[in-house]
This record gives sequence, C-alpha cells and structure tokens, in this order.
Amino acid sequence: MNTETARQIRELRETVARLHAELTRYGLVAWTSGNVSARVPGQDLLVIKPSGVSYDDLTADTIVVCDLDGALVEGDFAPSSDTAAHAYVYRAMPEVGGVVHTHSSYATAWAACGEAIPCHITAQADEFGGEIPVGPFALIGGDDIGKGIVTTLAGHRSPAVLMRNHGVFTIGRDARAAVKAAVMCEDVARTAHLARVLGQPVPIAQADIDALYHRYQNVYGQQPTAPASS
Amino acid sequence: MNTETARQIRELRETVARLHAELTRYGLVAWTSGNVSARVPGQDLLVIKPSGVSYDDLTADTIVVCDLDGALVEGDFAPSSDTAAHAYVYRAMPEVGGVVHTHSSYATAWAACGEAIPCHITAQADEFGGEIPVGPFALIGGDDIGKGIVTTLAGHRSPAVLMRNHGVFTIGRDARAAVKAAVMCEDVARTAHLARVLGQPVPIAQADIDALYHRYQNVYGQQPTAPASS
Amino acid sequence: MNTETARQIRELRETVARLHAELTRYGLVAWTSGNVSARVPGQDLLVIKPSGVSYDDLTADTIVVCDLDGALVEGDFAPSSDTAAHAYVYRAMPEVGGVVHTHSSYATAWAACGEAIPCHITAQADEFGGEIPVGPFALIGGDDIGKGIVTTLAGHRSPAVLMRNHGVFTIGRDARAAVKAAVMCEDVARTAHLARVLGQPVPIAQADIDALYHRYQNVYGQQPTAPASS
Amino acid sequence: MNTETARQIRELRETVARLHAELTRYGLVAWTSGNVSARVPGQDLLVIKPSGVSYDDLTADTIVVCDLDGALVEGDFAPSSDTAAHAYVYRAMPEVGGVVHTHSSYATAWAACGEAIPCHITAQADEFGGEIPVGPFALIGGDDIGKGIVTTLAGHRSPAVLMRNHGVFTIGRDARAAVKAAVMCEDVARTAHLARVLGQPVPIAQADIDALYHRYQNVYGQQPTAPASS
Repeated sequence: MNTETARQIRELRETVARLHAELTRYGLVAWTSGNVSARVPGQDLLVIKPSGVSYDDLTADTIVVCDLDGALVEGDFAPSSDTAAHAYVYRAMPEVGGVVHTHSSYATAWAACGEAIPCHITAQADEFGGEIPVGPFALIGGDDIGKGIVTTLAGHRSPAVLMRNHGVFTIGRDARAAVKAAVMCEDVARTAHLARVLGQPVPIAQADIDALYHRYQNVYGQQPTAPASS
Repeated sequence: MNTETARQIRELRETVARLHAELTRYGLVAWTSGNVSARVPGQDLLVIKPSGVSYDDLTADTIVVCDLDGALVEGDFAPSSDTAAHAYVYRAMPEVGGVVHTHSSYATAWAACGEAIPCHITAQADEFGGEIPVGPFALIGGDDIGKGIVTTLAGHRSPAVLMRNHGVFTIGRDARAAVKAAVMCEDVARTAHLARVLGQPVPIAQADIDALYHRYQNVYGQQPTAPASS
Repeated sequence: MNTETARQIRELRETVARLHAELTRYGLVAWTSGNVSARVPGQDLLVIKPSGVSYDDLTADTIVVCDLDGALVEGDFAPSSDTAAHAYVYRAMPEVGGVVHTHSSYATAWAACGEAIPCHITAQADEFGGEIPVGPFALIGGDDIGKGIVTTLAGHRSPAVLMRNHGVFTIGRDARAAVKAAVMCEDVARTAHLARVLGQPVPIAQADIDALYHRYQNVYGQQPTAPASS
Repeated sequence: MNTETARQIRELRETVARLHAELTRYGLVAWTSGNVSARVPGQDLLVIKPSGVSYDDLTADTIVVCDLDGALVEGDFAPSSDTAAHAYVYRAMPEVGGVVHTHSSYATAWAACGEAIPCHITAQADEFGGEIPVGPFALIGGDDIGKGIVTTLAGHRSPAVLMRNHGVFTIGRDARAAVKAAVMCEDVARTAHLARVLGQPVPIAQADIDALYHRYQNVYGQQPTAPASS
C-alpha cells in the first residue's frame, strides 16, 4: 500500500467515523445496530464500522479496513457483521462509493410488512424517483443479503432498499450521499406511514414524479463551480 | 446599495442563519430540506438559505441575497431551490416580511392526503384562526408554487398553507413570526393527527374560534411598551 | 413586603424559571405555549412565566409576581395570558402550591376528543389514582377555565385535568410536583394512545388501582428523614 | 466486607449510575420512573438506584447497596421501590448479573394490551430469539412481580418480559447487557407497533428465527481476544 492510498484510507476512516453521528442525530439507530462504509477509490478495499462498538467510541482508529470479500485487512476490531453485504454491493456496483445500513423504525415497519413505500410526496420523488422498493428476506452470513440488495436496486431509481423483515440499505456515490439517503428514507417512511394512517394519500402522476426526479438530480444543491456544500 | 441597507442586510443574514436552528430544534427538517427567508424592508430584495448546505454550516456569510425575481444579487452560494416560491410571495403580499418552508412530518402527512387540518384545539384557533388550508399540487421551477401559496392564503386567516403532496409554507410580518407559524403548524398537525387516530375530535364552534383568534392576535405576548420578547 | 417575603419570592422566581426547562426537556411545549407558576406561601401572591417570552430567555428576572386576582405586582413583563386560570386555582384550592399548563401533544389529543384517559397502566394508578378526567370547554379571559379546572379536579384523585379542546392543567403541593404531574400526564397519555391504537387494553381492577395509589402516595421516594430528592 | 469487595462495589455503583444515562438518552424513562441494578459478583448483594431521585442527580454516591432480600446495606437513600423485584430475580437466576426496569412507551403499550411482541424483524430474532413474552399482572410490595418475571422468562429465550399493565423488566449477564436489552426491547416494540398499524406484518419462519438467534449470540460483536467493546 503506497503513501497516497494510506492517506486516502486515513481520511475515509475519519469521514466514516464522523458520519455515524448523523445516524444517531436523526435517531436511525439503537445501541450499535447500524453501520456506514466507504469504498477506497481505485482499490479493492472498503472501510467500515467495527462490530458491536458503541457510537460514542467510534474514532478513525476503530474503523476497520476490509477487502471486497469482507476479510479484515487493517484494524484492531472485528468488522461489522454486515460487512459481507456491503462488500457484495461494492463488487457488483462499481459506481457505488458508500453504503449504509440501519433498522430505522418507520422504514423497518414497511419492511416488516413487505410493502414498498409509495411515492406520495415530492421529497420522495426528488430523492428516490418513485417508490422505495422491498427486497427479499435473506439470512445474514453469506451473499444472500448483498444479492437481494443489488437485484432489487437494479430495477429502480431509488438509492434505498427495504430488506424484508430486516431494515434499510442505501447506496451513494460516496458515504455521505448514502447517509443522506438513509436519513431521507426514514423521513419519507414516517410521512408515508402517518399519511396512510390518517386517510387517503393522493397519488402523484408518474410524469410529475419523473420531472421532479430529473430536476433534483441535476439542479439541486451547489454546482461544482460553487464552494462545495458539506 | 447604501450603508444603512448594507447594515440591514447584514443583520437579516445573521437573523435568518440563526432562525434555521429553530427548524432543527423542533425536528421540522431532515438533512437540508427546509428554509427560511426574510424581506429586506424597503428594498426589492430578500435573504435566504443557500441550496443543499447543511444546517451546521449556516452562518451569516453563507446566507445569500436575491432580488424579488429570485436572482442571486450577493453571496457565494446558489440560493435555495425554493427561492422562486419565496420571491413570488414577497411580490404578491407586501405585508409579508418572512417566509418559511418545511416538509415537517405530520403537516406533510395531511398535505399528502390533500386534507386541511381541522381546528379542534384552541392553540390552532389562536394562531391560525381556523383550519390550515391545502393548496394545489405544483411543480417546482416556475411561479406555480408561489401562486398556489398566495391564492390559498388569500381565503384564510392562516399564516400556514399545506401544499398538496409537498409540505408547508408559512408567512409572517418578519422571519421570526414565519418560523413560529411553522413550529406551531407541525405542533397542531401532530395533535390533530393523534386525535383523529384516537377517536372523534369535538368541533369548536365558529364563534369560539373567532373569539380566540381575535383575542390572541391582539392581547397575547408583550405589548410594544413592554420590553420586547425574543 | 418584608425581607423574608422578598427572599422567598426571589427563590421561587429562580425555581420557576428553572422548572420550565423540564417542559422543554420532555417536549411538552412548542415555542412559548406552556407555563409554570408557584404560590408564595403565606401571601396572596403567585409567581409565573411572562407572556410570549422564549424559554431560552427565562431567568428569575423575567418571571413576574401577581396577586391572586392575576394583576401584576412586580416584574418587567406582562404575565402569562393563562394567569387568571392559575390564580383561580390558588384562590379555590389552598393546598395547591404549584400549577402547570401545557398543550402536550398526546394529552391534548385526548382533550380534543373530550375523552378521559382510562387507567390501564400501574404508573397512572400510582400518580393519578385512576383516569385523568376531562374538564369543560372554556374561553380564555375570565374565570371559566379556572372554574372548570377546580370543579373537575374536585371529583378525582388526579392532579391533572384535560381541558376540552385545549390542553392540560396540573396541580401540586409545590411547582416541582405540578411539573412532575405534567410530565407523567403526557407519558401516560402517550402509552394509553399507543395501547388504544394497538389493540384491546386490559382494565385494571379498581381495588388494584386503589392499592397502587395509596402505596405510591405514602411509600415512594425518599422519606422526610432521608436527604431530599430533587 | 473486605477491600476487594469494597472496590468492586465502588466500581459497580459508578457503572450503574452511568448506565442510567442510556435510559434517558433513548427516552425510555420519564422523571424518575426506571432503574438499573447490578449483582455484586460472589456476594449476596446488589447495587441499585435510590427511590425517586432525579437522573441528573445520580452519582456513584447516591446508588445504594442492598442484600438479596432487598434490605438496605449501605447508602444514604432509600432503595428503589422496585428493589424487591430485582432481588427476587438475582435469588432465582444465578446467571443474571444485571436487571433493568422501565415503563418505555411502546413496550408498555403492548403490556397494557397483554400482548406479546411478535417476532417480525431480524433484530428481534437476533436479540430476543422470538417473541417478547407477557408476564402476569402483579402488585408491587411483595415477591409477586419477581416471581412473575422469573416464571415468564423461564419459558423463553428473551431477556425481556412485559409485565401486564405495568412495563418492562430485562436481564443480562451484567448491567450493561440488561440495559442493551431494555433499549432494544423498546426499539422492536416501536417497529412492531408501527408495522401492526401499517398493514400485515409478514411472519419469519421459526427455523430462520432460530438461525438468526444462534448466530447473533455466538458471532456478533468483538470476541474475547479482541479489545472489548464498551
């Protein structure tokens, strides 16, 4: 591993450690139940949360480095028990730079019912481009979860998938984008739940969903020539 | 721009930056999804949140200045993608000094169902003078959202409108009043949702709603001769 | 006013200012919507929150002193618009040393439906001795709210009453006890709401409610000879 | 009591004082309503929260030491009114090193309905190995609650039991494990409630629950040779 790769890994470990604070800030996780990972660009490596370590104790030093088969390469802790699923996504989807997993309550309630989240609000059209789909039930320990994620996402614009009876996996061009998708997934899952319980949510026409999605993906936020948002 | 206007704009940028903390404090926003603006009194200008910038990073320097067509006049960032809607409101309603937009969960659930929030509690009669109305579905990008807000508010006492399938816009004599309306809108939306799910909310007679509204608008809070509340 | 009374008032203003932080900590209030008062022992006086002042800005100096007709006696701000209701309670119930008013969401949802909170959990039997009753609808501005509170509480063990379409009033031997009742009222209102929505709550036998109530009122907490809990 | 036992007690009092902060962090308790205890290994002693003392004021010095009949052995405060239940569990279950009691809202709603929480999500299979069972209604003050806890847990893998019309008791090999079970119990109670209200939760096959439980109990987290998670 050369110096530049080492520096890159160091930075990613810091970023990934820090991004876990967004999971606790938005109440997406209980105890040690969610995790963030990032691909090391140009390397067959990822960095990920260690297994069963408290969010209070996460620092760059506790974040571990694994290869894309999920084997520990560097670090003092055992990697997250979800590492195999993250690794599968990185192997199958080269455009993905970050993966997040949570059991956030509202989204997991939809997952427990095996129901996709229907697209009834513009924020969901913006970020997810339509419904948030449900993937299959899969046991932890092999590639089944990873395959379920990748197969389900392949047919949708959504960067989030609800794994049945389990929870949420989100992807992004980097770890921050995947965390944003996890935050927004719970937000739209809650609003959609509240609307379902309240009355009759009004559908949005597909053409309007398409227009919202394309605009948001191309216009929202600061463009590359402006100072980067953080 | 003369010195007095420059000073005024500086103060408004500080105020508007700080007021966003009320949106996060009350859980009205996820990630970067809501925004506050203020009219620059006596000028065809407004100050508003930049697009896609984290609430943690908002300072007076990041808040941007736009004209009342929504074009950037001063600032280092692209303005909020909702700027056109804010600008339309300022053009059409000269008495409005502040506008707030959120996707707060309970209010947006009512918006997703296209249902006005019925007035079943005195706090709603006080602040909103009756139901909180629903405006039309409108795509972002032109004047449709702004027109929908203004047309809907014209027929109601309410300083808040639920834009269908979208979220909340509130107005006020200044930005702080519009933020208060956004906070209270989510509060009454939650209580009304919980009451609907629980049983049969008891209506309040129109004469009582009128009496509560008029009293609250004229008596509540500190009067001008007393030290100002903040 | 002699020195001892002045000292006592100073202490109560500090206590009452500080106790408002419990309302925000437990999410019982939005913006400036709830208030705490305390009787000045041995005097026909009370101390209470000023009207429309932010919880962030409450200090002993902002808390005002009123007589038991609700007229301002000392302080730089207009008293809470709910002062008449607090004052009525102190006039009618000499054993009461503290009063709290909130619009906390779950309790107010029961109030909006005009339904008493049934006693389905032991914590409610402990603290409230049975159901939490509903008082009449009453307009602000005279003695109607105060009368409604006192008349309703007269027939119940509960230190909390849900005023219909309005919110919660609680009483206690001092302001801290009234704040505790407000916190516990929202807690049991939430649990009772969740249970109602979930299925068929199991009633508790009246004899068991009685046993729980009597034990809690006489045994729970630190006895006078032990160091005082705070 | 020898020096080593005194040192051990001192450490446990610090640990137990600190662990109460997890109850407030996750919103499991209101006012002073929940408590954590730990067995003193090798001694017929336990340490536990004092009765009615605010979580803000809990320090190692306020935590009390009792024998396994619940009688105060050391400390300046009266022990928690739930001490008899904790003590009964330690007497009957020698493998238990920590006990937690809360009235957390969603779990207590299931308890109010007398319904076990069905196992519809993998996180519940992991931690609880199936449904979270309901124990009998029991009055405080004797051994009835303790007996109800022990009898109910005897027939289940779950480290949590919902005592009917009351709340949650959890056990663990130490106090930290019991606190984790209390946090996860509320988390799965909330998700199961949201799923029930939303639609038709999909059952998980018993063989899959078994596989998840056995894997989690044996593989998750840091193994003894790795640095301990905290």
